[in-house]
Amino acid sequence: MRGSHKVHVGPLNVAMREIDLEPSSGEPPLRVYDTSGPYTDPATRIDIMAGLHELRRDWIRSRNDVEEVAQREVRPEDNGQLGPDRSGGVQPFPNVRRTVLRARPGMNVSQMHYARRGIVTPEMEYVATRENLGRAMLNEYVRDGQDWGASIPDYVTPEFVRDEVARGRAIIPSNINHPESEPMAVGRNFLVKINANIGNSAVASDVASEVDKMVWAIRWGADTVMDLSTGRNIHDTREWIIRNSPVPIGTVPIYQALEKVGGIAEDLTWEIFRDTLIEQAEQGVDYFTIHAGVRLPYIPMTAKRVTGIVSRGGSIMAKWCLAHHKESFLYERFDEITEIMKAYDIAYSLGDGLRPGSIADANDEAQFAELYTLGELTKRAWEQDVQVMIEGPGHVPMHKIKENMDKQLQACGEAPFYTLGPLTTDIAPGYDHITSGIGAAMIGWYGTAMLCYVTPKEHLGLPDRDDVKVGVVTYKLAAHAADLAKGHPAAKLRDDALSRARFEFRWRDQFNLSLDPDTAEQYHDQTLPAEGAKTAHFCSMCGPKFCSMKITQEVRDFAAKQNQGAESFLAANSSLASAGEGDHSAKPNGGGGLAAEEAEAGMAEMSEKFRETGSELYMGAGGREHD
Amino acid sequence: MRGSHKVHVGPLNVAMREIDLEPSSGEPPLRVYDTSGPYTDPATRIDIMAGLHELRRDWIRSRNDVEEVAQREVRPEDNGQLGPDRSGGVQPFPNVRRTVLRARPGMNVSQMHYARRGIVTPEMEYVATRENLGRAMLNEYVRDGQDWGASIPDYVTPEFVRDEVARGRAIIPSNINHPESEPMAVGRNFLVKINANIGNSAVASDVASEVDKMVWAIRWGADTVMDLSTGRNIHDTREWIIRNSPVPIGTVPIYQALEKVGGIAEDLTWEIFRDTLIEQAEQGVDYFTIHAGVRLPYIPMTAKRVTGIVSRGGSIMAKWCLAHHKESFLYERFDEITEIMKAYDIAYSLGDGLRPGSIADANDEAQFAELYTLGELTKRAWEQDVQVMIEGPGHVPMHKIKENMDKQLQACGEAPFYTLGPLTTDIAPGYDHITSGIGAAMIGWYGTAMLCYVTPKEHLGLPDRDDVKVGVVTYKLAAHAADLAKGHPAAKLRDDALSRARFEFRWRDQFNLSLDPDTAEQYHDQTLPAEGAKTAHFCSMCGPKFCSMKITQEVRDFAAKQNQGAESFLAANSSLASAGEGDHSAKPNGGGGLAAEEAEAGMAEMSEKFRETGSELYMGAGGREHD
Repeated sequence: MRGSHKVHVGPLNVAMREIDLEPSSGEPPLRVYDTSGPYTDPATRIDIMAGLHELRRDWIRSRNDVEEVAQREVRPEDNGQLGPDRSGGVQPFPNVRRTVLRARPGMNVSQMHYARRGIVTPEMEYVATRENLGRAMLNEYVRDGQDWGASIPDYVTPEFVRDEVARGRAIIPSNINHPESEPMAVGRNFLVKINANIGNSAVASDVASEVDKMVWAIRWGADTVMDLSTGRNIHDTREWIIRNSPVPIGTVPIYQALEKVGGIAEDLTWEIFRDTLIEQAEQGVDYFTIHAGVRLPYIPMTAKRVTGIVSRGGSIMAKWCLAHHKESFLYERFDEITEIMKAYDIAYSLGDGLRPGSIADANDEAQFAELYTLGELTKRAWEQDVQVMIEGPGHVPMHKIKENMDKQLQACGEAPFYTLGPLTTDIAPGYDHITSGIGAAMIGWYGTAMLCYVTPKEHLGLPDRDDVKVGVVTYKLAAHAADLAKGHPAAKLRDDALSRARFEFRWRDQFNLSLDPDTAEQYHDQTLPAEGAKTAHFCSMCGPKFCSMKITQEVRDFAAKQNQGAESFLAANSSLASAGEGDHSAKPNGGGGLAAEEAEAGMAEMSEKFRETGSELYMGAGGREHD
Repeated sequence: MRGSHKVHVGPLNVAMREIDLEPSSGEPPLRVYDTSGPYTDPATRIDIMAGLHELRRDWIRSRNDVEEVAQREVRPEDNGQLGPDRSGGVQPFPNVRRTVLRARPGMNVSQMHYARRGIVTPEMEYVATRENLGRAMLNEYVRDGQDWGASIPDYVTPEFVRDEVARGRAIIPSNINHPESEPMAVGRNFLVKINANIGNSAVASDVASEVDKMVWAIRWGADTVMDLSTGRNIHDTREWIIRNSPVPIGTVPIYQALEKVGGIAEDLTWEIFRDTLIEQAEQGVDYFTIHAGVRLPYIPMTAKRVTGIVSRGGSIMAKWCLAHHKESFLYERFDEITEIMKAYDIAYSLGDGLRPGSIADANDEAQFAELYTLGELTKRAWEQDVQVMIEGPGHVPMHKIKENMDKQLQACGEAPFYTLGPLTTDIAPGYDHITSGIGAAMIGWYGTAMLCYVTPKEHLGLPDRDDVKVGVVTYKLAAHAADLAKGHPAAKLRDDALSRARFEFRWRDQFNLSLDPDTAEQYHDQTLPAEGAKTAHFCSMCGPKFCSMKITQEVRDFAAKQNQGAESFLAANSSLASAGEGDHSAKPNGGGGLAAEEAEAGMAEMSEKFRETGSELYMGAGGREHD
């Protein structure tokens, strides 16, 4: 990333980034969370054909609870080839592993299982270091926020992570067959996370584009990525993605199962689905969206809806249920699914198949009936120590958003909430990253742990890489706004650093501290491209005479000069001189710390003087307007 | 606007738009609020050189309280020409009126003055019709929202408008010298409005571009426009804009005053400022931003801020105060300013010169000290029946937003609040339309009457027309999300109409009902440009097999067919057949109203049957997975 460099922190070499600031700022580099993986590490050689380094390999194996098994053979139907025609395939990932890992019989390899046995795993330690960000830089933890009853710690310890995972309030999605992933946590008491969706459809895209979208999405800040492919070559596409992904990968297995039965929902079977789970588990998928809450009795509740069932998986299951006159096999077979999950440490993302797809349908009977079933299923999964997060809406007007959070907390035992937006109005296709960014920021503030992005293409078509970027940056800013509002102790460091840079006209620092330095600089340069403009004390919005920040600087300089006895002031406050260096919390404004003190003193003295002597000047001075 | 046509409603020919829907929808055209003026009326001939038709001319003159006076001569310094050099000028508006209007001596022509005398003016009647939108179409007023104590009526009467204006809770900005404007109201109990900023700077833009930005901004939905020019040719630029603007125009007079003294804030005088007010009043400016709350004692409170004073007007006044060791002349001379306002019906926009320009500075002492002074000034203005709205922040993290609304309501007697965002984080320059769209939607929900837009160029440079459009559409969706959340009775009509169109794959209707039909269609066509795709029951996001809406339709059709005794059902419920036509409220989903009833009945019956007979099928049926 421009203007910053990768660092590795602590004994586990936790990857982060540091944004370097100009020496005139007097500030150390700002440390920020980094999802971009080895792709932005100049010290790492990238080979997409080989996949990433298996960061967690030794941690997994040293737990001595896994065995190697031959990977299930890839069948033509795994890639959507149902008849003799073998055309339309893609090059498989060249370094598919011959053997994969699975829990030894009777063992449970989920992070929750270890946590409940009091074990702090390396994954938990990694998470703790990663979540602490720049906290070590703070002298004190200012908690300025409204967290609605969350329990965000001042400083994250590995023990805190263990406890959150043990009680189910956080998950660390980390399939033992995805050792390339850099561990991360999804939970209300950690930084709000975001997910980017990629994947082809029958109508658009190809493998190279999808791998590129994944790398592009994490470059801009996606914490997890879901591969939602619904077209051809689902298996091969996924292999390329997972082997090259440093972030957890999620899927919706019912999509591939549907492809295997030629798109005929009625032909889905538990056997096909189960086999698909194993296939994807062996590849290393870290979380599965399972729409086990779309129960037969709930389907009639959707008949009156304006937009029916908008979840792909939900509509598929609804069709199956009605066609067979049976309860959902996902619901019926849930405990068997859980047995599979625990053998690989795959987390549940309990799907909101009955989420509202329009303002009219928000918070209706169908939606909450499903939510309460997801709560029931959460408890069942926890009985087997399997990690769970709960998916959420959708389209919800602002006044109905908090109810969603409150009900989810109550129904699902504080399992992490993972919402899609929500969109706060239906009337702006083309801008749904924004209509949903509003709802996402709010529900993140209220306690949602992960926000699934929405791109400008929502409702209109498959997103391209530009859309992916815009969606990711929009959701990063929404998640960060939520962290700020919750009073997360380290969140404000970045806002303050950027605002100081802005105030001091350190243009490059302002760009580099922002979520998208390239765009910020590009927009600035549209009207002021010359190199000199990067240190100019104005931009084209107002020009040199009208820049309020420039004028404010002049006001402060003026006041400081006017401050009689400035020297004695300095002498009396010599500690201020040294306090101005290197310590953020004691320096209220950038490099002008001492000047600010002088300015304030100066202005206050003048103000005093006016009150004492100048009251006549105040009360209608008459002709001397130039005073 | 594509897919819609201009209509004129009622005896005052209030301009609105109707969006035509496909006949298969069975729905009448949807009526929406329209700010675009005569520019989108094919029956009107536009001549920018002549200006718009003087819609309000007779209303103003028939009140018999105005006199014609010769317009003040334009001086070179009005256009920034301070020395003998007359280059760099622009073509003045060719049809400047020789005489302008002013209240007869002792008279008061403000809408508030009429309202307080019990008079319902044509402007108030126009507003009532305009605000009612499609309410007449509703059979009942469903109030589903949280309005935090607002008083939004089911149906807006002219008397209601009068009362709101009389009590100061709403304003109708309508200078008697801007008779071209289509009256509109800014108030908590009306639709949330948005403002777009245009205007050149010393560094960028020209007259033609600024007039174009105004027309472009109102085309996309700007309810008022502020001309914030700070460069050359301020007077001439403004004349072109006002004569051609169907929406109220606001300015910040101190900018032009500063230009007249060559940019030296210390050289500002009350005389120059007063003269500028008259100059702009005669041209027809509808509201003035006056930073009368930037008082001398408050300035030291900003010394510790991270970003100081970010308001241009505020920083200019701060500089003047300190340089002269005097209280602000805007504050001192406030009552004299009010005397001028009431002679033309110019509304105050009491400026938030001390608003926070960074998260760090939000809700600080300086900000609220000014707010309380604005409250004091509001009461003083109301003593002379002059209309007032209050400007607000800025940069405010989400958890601090409501405090702003609560304090403003309390301090300013419920005068309308007019905020700039607020931005909910500092870290995303390039995306500040979004960081602020979040705060704007929230503060609009809480009761803010007008939202001043922010474009992607905020903090980086002067916006171009593309930025203007993106800013306007973003703020339209934020304002609408606020209306929805407040439970405004007519707001949801548009969301529901669009969602029905979406569900029924009426793609053209979906585009035409959206805030930006061009972009929506363009995004759709990026992957599916063929004409046939406009009626396809899928798009490229999921393709034909995976479209959840298509599958939902299939589910409903299937359920309807399976419904045994469907014919007897119909016979027993013949009223349903006729209820399905033409009446929105009785038709829960678009053209499938009757099918939905059948579907629900069908699904419910099946569900019943399962429970009665199928319990064995539920409890682990064993081998027959294909059932």
